[in-house]
Amino acid sequence: MELKAYLAQRRELVDEALERLLPADEAGGDILKAMRYSLFAGGKRLRPILCLAGAEAVGGRPEQVMFCACALEMIHTYSLIHDDLPAMDDDDLRRGLPTCHKKFGEGLAVLAGDGLLTQAMVLLSDPAQYADREPLRVLAAGQAVMRAAGFQGMVGGQAVDLASQNQEPDLATVQYMHALKTGALITAAVQSGAILAGGDEEQVNHLVRYGRRVGLAFQIADDLLDREGDQAKLGKATHADEKHGKMTYPAVVGAVQARKIGWDLVNQAAELARELGPAADPLAELARYIMERTH
Amino acid sequence: MELKAYLAQRRELVDEALERLLPADEAGGDILKAMRYSLFAGGKRLRPILCLAGAEAVGGRPEQVMFCACALEMIHTYSLIHDDLPAMDDDDLRRGLPTCHKKFGEGLAVLAGDGLLTQAMVLLSDPAQYADREPLRVLAAGQAVMRAAGFQGMVGGQAVDLASQNQEPDLATVQYMHALKTGALITAAVQSGAILAGGDEEQVNHLVRYGRRVGLAFQIADDLLDREGDQAKLGKATHADEKHGKMTYPAVVGAVQARKIGWDLVNQAAELARELGPAADPLAELARYIMERTH
Repeated sequence: MELKAYLAQRRELVDEALERLLPADEAGGDILKAMRYSLFAGGKRLRPILCLAGAEAVGGRPEQVMFCACALEMIHTYSLIHDDLPAMDDDDLRRGLPTCHKKFGEGLAVLAGDGLLTQAMVLLSDPAQYADREPLRVLAAGQAVMRAAGFQGMVGGQAVDLASQNQEPDLATVQYMHALKTGALITAAVQSGAILAGGDEEQVNHLVRYGRRVGLAFQIADDLLDREGDQAKLGKATHADEKHGKMTYPAVVGAVQARKIGWDLVNQAAELARELGPAADPLAELARYIMERTH
Repeated sequence: MELKAYLAQRRELVDEALERLLPADEAGGDILKAMRYSLFAGGKRLRPILCLAGAEAVGGRPEQVMFCACALEMIHTYSLIHDDLPAMDDDDLRRGLPTCHKKFGEGLAVLAGDGLLTQAMVLLSDPAQYADREPLRVLAAGQAVMRAAGFQGMVGGQAVDLASQNQEPDLATVQYMHALKTGALITAAVQSGAILAGGDEEQVNHLVRYGRRVGLAFQIADDLLDREGDQAKLGKATHADEKHGKMTYPAVVGAVQARKIGWDLVNQAAELARELGPAADPLAELARYIMERTH
């Protein structure tokens, strides 16, 4: 398969669905404008694409799980908006554009994040989305996504991130923080896709193991790109981690060792995907792509 | 019935359930501490109590809907935490205690709000809570609550509130803003309770009409208390609306007329409750209590 073309095609599908599920509407006022501004600022749509691929890996069709894929992207976007706030990372630039609070003010940015998170939950319980599906699977998928997003997942990881700034780097902390901050939602993406598409328990658990490795590798890659990447290509300020005294993999084990750990993780993930058969080929390719981006 | 005793007993039930559903845990770190700090800061538990009463009004039992009642309180608490932030209302005091960001810092306060909102959704899709219930009713209740909380409900109302500060007072705007900001979630409280307890469509719609009136009256009462109330009794700074140039009912139509509108609304709501028979007596009493607080 040609991964670049696959990603571009999937991204287009996701963008169309997001446009349909959160359409522009003058009556929506400033809050909807701010939500859409960040949602359509050019994300890679990695989490939705993983959700669609998770469904396919267990024999489902992408359109069956598109509402969940879009909910995942809304959750990811809300986390970026809040993360960029002055009280958190205080970033002015995101994907080459002014961050939400730079464009709309801090108050509305807080609300836009809240609105996107809530809208994700609206989607995950929308009767129009689960009409032809077992409601118990819809609830289970929503549960997996929300647990991953909450204080025992992404939000918890952000809190550890805040608390660990300018502390002595420590591998256990950085591992724990990355697993929560980034790993949990990426894992929930493949997991929820597989649950909604009718995957059995063994398949779902297999994909959870895949997701944990990809999630951690993704954060390692992100750390490496922040340290070594090209600001113009990334569309955001690099060396931000250093500026904020952030605990990262390269800071703890060095860039060479971090890159090795990242490759080990994505190779393991690719192997796990291959065990599910050809329907999981895109997942295997996606895993390796995570680390290829850093070269 | 003796309303004061009823409220105290219900409040205790809700507090016990919240303690069980979000227990203290050293491993939860700062984020859980901040979430619990605001959740157990002494709220009246009005929304949960309305949810329980909504269930009883259609023949259900309070314990059947307690998980949803607690989710509503988590949503309400998150909205207060974010509303108190410097970028929004910039309040230092809430229920007689330092606000969340005063106690834990702004970054963690943003995350504590995010964590509570997400945890509400975890509850609303928790398998342990819907084991003996039609999953479609659980999804429908979650949907009603989340729509009410989102950009077409509470979050949308907050955004209108931000935009309308220091604008010329205008009755249509204040009505629209209050209906979204406060009315939507209060309506969803009785509505979700009735849906989960097996209420039929007519009963649910009847309770939605009740909830809209109570929700609007509640905000009018809040405006009146901010203007005329006793800071020590309320546990928060009064005259905050004036300070922030907020659009309120008393500011638009005067205190006398605002009080009259409030009483008309709660009398209508009490009448609607009585039409549902004696099981809805608590709802009738609760409606009148909203305005009695302002005297």
